[in-house]
Amino acid sequence: MLALTILGNNSAIPAFDRFPTSQVLQSPEEGYLIDCGEGTQMQLSRYKIRRSRINHIFISHLHGDHYFGLIGLITSMSLMGRTQDLHIYASPPLLPILQLQLEAANTILSFKFYFHPLTAPGLILDNSKIQVSAFSVKHRIECWGFLFKENRNPRKIDPVRVKSFEIPSSFYEKLQKGEDYVTKKGTIIPNDEVTIAAPLPKTYGYCADTIYDESLIDKIIGVDLLYHETTYLQDNEKKAAARFHSTTMQAGAIAKKAGVKRLLIGHFSARYEILDPFLEEVITVFPNTELALDGVTYRI
Amino acid sequence: MLALTILGNNSAIPAFDRFPTSQVLQSPEEGYLIDCGEGTQMQLSRYKIRRSRINHIFISHLHGDHYFGLIGLITSMSLMGRTQDLHIYASPPLLPILQLQLEAANTILSFKFYFHPLTAPGLILDNSKIQVSAFSVKHRIECWGFLFKENRNPRKIDPVRVKSFEIPSSFYEKLQKGEDYVTKKGTIIPNDEVTIAAPLPKTYGYCADTIYDESLIDKIIGVDLLYHETTYLQDNEKKAAARFHSTTMQAGAIAKKAGVKRLLIGHFSARYEILDPFLEEVITVFPNTELALDGVTYRI
Repeated sequence: MLALTILGNNSAIPAFDRFPTSQVLQSPEEGYLIDCGEGTQMQLSRYKIRRSRINHIFISHLHGDHYFGLIGLITSMSLMGRTQDLHIYASPPLLPILQLQLEAANTILSFKFYFHPLTAPGLILDNSKIQVSAFSVKHRIECWGFLFKENRNPRKIDPVRVKSFEIPSSFYEKLQKGEDYVTKKGTIIPNDEVTIAAPLPKTYGYCADTIYDESLIDKIIGVDLLYHETTYLQDNEKKAAARFHSTTMQAGAIAKKAGVKRLLIGHFSARYEILDPFLEEVITVFPNTELALDGVTYRI
Repeated sequence: MLALTILGNNSAIPAFDRFPTSQVLQSPEEGYLIDCGEGTQMQLSRYKIRRSRINHIFISHLHGDHYFGLIGLITSMSLMGRTQDLHIYASPPLLPILQLQLEAANTILSFKFYFHPLTAPGLILDNSKIQVSAFSVKHRIECWGFLFKENRNPRKIDPVRVKSFEIPSSFYEKLQKGEDYVTKKGTIIPNDEVTIAAPLPKTYGYCADTIYDESLIDKIIGVDLLYHETTYLQDNEKKAAARFHSTTMQAGAIAKKAGVKRLLIGHFSARYEILDPFLEEVITVFPNTELALDGVTYRI
């Protein structure tokens, strides 16, 4: 069970009451903050997402519209007396930026904060609930995409059926892992006769700011939900490429080639007040697409 | 003619849709930005204040609620293609904070930006229209208040009366400066018989974040408008002092002792949703007081 709440969907310059990039991927246990543009802490308040749910923050790259809200969020967490650890995953130059600002204010944070520098693609977090991997994205500066993958829950034992087959409780853990049971007489009780599979683990791919790049496909293949930027409509394809951004049709093409289940588009340029044309263009290539809208939660 | 627009009136943690501290002092020619908390660029858009009017930014101190919005504002100005110079007045540690963030994004600003480090009290800007002085304020870290004083316009010549006294036009400049005219026969024509005084120059005093401190009085004596913080209501006097902030009654006392014409109070703690009690308390000491409210413009 994952759900994604958009806190900001705009590109570089905030406009039309659209905030710069920030999202929270929500699991039943906690919220994973992805990018943190200016005003993220206000958006968290506006959409009633408790800061205490956030223990991990992933910053894709060091363009300001993806992280200028981070120092304010951290500072407020401290002023509110947070004690839980906080983990930040980002390119190495972010650490001295944060430190310098904390030092200038003589701030000693009320909680421990761990900085995890992103230096190579691969697994960056694996707790019992979720695995997060970083992958390289082609943008004007070093940029990371993130793949979130729920860890699969163990199979659920059917209490009536295990009893009817007289399976001892000492074998339950193996059943949860999918093993078949063999009776003393040698009869095989197939696992799926006595257990129920947990729901398929969900996956979310976040491609950050990216030029059209087919090498992304392998990294997000088949995900349940893909976020791909569409800074520009298709008629601005050249401008998009020059600025290492993507267009509608390009986002749709990546989603289609990667066989993802659903596509969410965002990072709209401040030149566009009306967003409908983005959706109209993308669905011609990839129908199962939605606009990432501030304040909206998308169930995965 | 000065007018002050409030962009943010809240203390450290944004709350109840109140933004952290930022104000624009508007003259007919330009806007002087005072402090720049997170979200200032959004507030400028919301209240339709053009960024191009802002050439001078004054930062009182390096607590985040007074400057975390600066890097975003500067970056957006550059993305929008600004070419005018920008001047920033602040404590020296701000410069490397800004530079590090620009470097991390490979940003080369589209305009020249001049950093004026505040290291001693005194005059920091004097253009033909306004004089700005910085003065020391007692807070947890180095903190500056600002006094804005319009330069007085020259006296206006009364065209009918100068003619009737047969004063030669070569003397007009001296008349504008206030000199009397002496005729060839030795008769003195008093200046105010032939000129009209320009309106009295207006003054605005900004006391930033401050503990109750009577040494401020000399610095803002008799100003037309005084901004004094009131982070807390009177019953939190001890907490205010411990955090180097002020209460309602303290702000009122400073305004009264300094004989200012009008008092504006702000920097309200996030613990208060309703602000009326602030006003109710202050006016018992200093009646001509108003709440600094986001989006409201106060004529000086």
